[in-house]
Amino acid sequence: MKFSFVSLFPNLIKPYFEDSILKKAIEKNLINIDFYNPREYSKNKHNKVDDTLCGGGAGQLMFPQPLFDLLDEIKTKDKDAYIIFPLAAAKPFKQSDAIRLAKKKHIVMVSGRYEGIDERVIETYANEVFSIGDYILTGGELASTVMADAISRNYDGVLGNNESLDEESYNLNEDNKLTLEAPSFTKPIDFNNLRVPSELLKGNHAKIRNLKSKLSRCKTKYFRP
Amino acid sequence: MKFSFVSLFPNLIKPYFEDSILKKAIEKNLINIDFYNPREYSKNKHNKVDDTLCGGGAGQLMFPQPLFDLLDEIKTKDKDAYIIFPLAAAKPFKQSDAIRLAKKKHIVMVSGRYEGIDERVIETYANEVFSIGDYILTGGELASTVMADAISRNYDGVLGNNESLDEESYNLNEDNKLTLEAPSFTKPIDFNNLRVPSELLKGNHAKIRNLKSKLSRCKTKYFRP
Repeated sequence: MKFSFVSLFPNLIKPYFEDSILKKAIEKNLINIDFYNPREYSKNKHNKVDDTLCGGGAGQLMFPQPLFDLLDEIKTKDKDAYIIFPLAAAKPFKQSDAIRLAKKKHIVMVSGRYEGIDERVIETYANEVFSIGDYILTGGELASTVMADAISRNYDGVLGNNESLDEESYNLNEDNKLTLEAPSFTKPIDFNNLRVPSELLKGNHAKIRNLKSKLSRCKTKYFRP
Repeated sequence: MKFSFVSLFPNLIKPYFEDSILKKAIEKNLINIDFYNPREYSKNKHNKVDDTLCGGGAGQLMFPQPLFDLLDEIKTKDKDAYIIFPLAAAKPFKQSDAIRLAKKKHIVMVSGRYEGIDERVIETYANEVFSIGDYILTGGELASTVMADAISRNYDGVLGNNESLDEESYNLNEDNKLTLEAPSFTKPIDFNNLRVPSELLKGNHAKIRNLKSKLSRCKTKYFRP
């Protein structure tokens, strides 16, 4: 699958794909990425891409022309390109979205900077808008990378031997409710007098499942009351 | 303020601080960063840092020794270092946390890889554990960077002229409930027959405030039902 990143600061995104799991996924040709910089599409003589807000307010907003030209070019090359805007004021991005979007062939992530993007761009091009969480970032680049990472690992073949989709940090139960994973332990069994819970060591898989499910419910109750 | 990043893959984090706003914050000496790689602390003869799970299950877990030695070293150098673990199974990270943590002098972000980190490390060292959202990432690096970014922009002087804390993408209202920002517009007023809402152009600030507050309530109802 392919990710196109639209950003004024591609160097905030690119290096993330040059190490670890996603580097391997690119080498194996499972994932492809490319970059588009709105500044290169600006018809302003100083290559400006931002202007003051209508109706007043501090800060600058990315104006429509560069993004319209850029996104038109992407849509002309690939009419099925699926365009996502990471925005603070949008639908929360969830694991179910990561799984669903891993089936798309080509996802375009449009990162805003400054105070954001003129709403007309979003209205015209967005297939979906997502917020990765209820906090504010300096731009859309990290949110785009977060979503690309979460989506990629659900694409067949991307996870290596050391990682696995089977043992997830949480799962959705039958009622589609989130259950957080129980604490995990590895060797040594005794480290500085801190011991792995003995139930995990006795090889009774029914008991282990039972304990993990109890701990998982406690953790979920505590962190997602 | 200072961020120490503990990670097996520092190159997934470092470049984010080499461009745009956070680069400037580092140049102005407002923000300092350093990196610790658990692999360099491993006493295993192959510098291994991970082992299989107790009680069974796929994948590998980071074992205690390298992280204990590394975090002890950090705590010895600075006993007030505030240690945060980004984990999927943890408390949701919120804007109020970003604001609160911007008052800390030294934050340590410990990134897990593979299936995560042995619980004894977290129990022993964590001042706080956070999840940046209900989705799964290939490692803790992006979550650490997201939190560092959200925290940094609340540190005095970090935001430049083009950005501003005054006009946020959302705010907490009197009841501490989230309100998402109204759509924003910039020039030109007419772009390809898409017009900025005329109320924003008449200079009646009471009416503008009123419209924005209505749009903001609609958006919040729609995206955070």
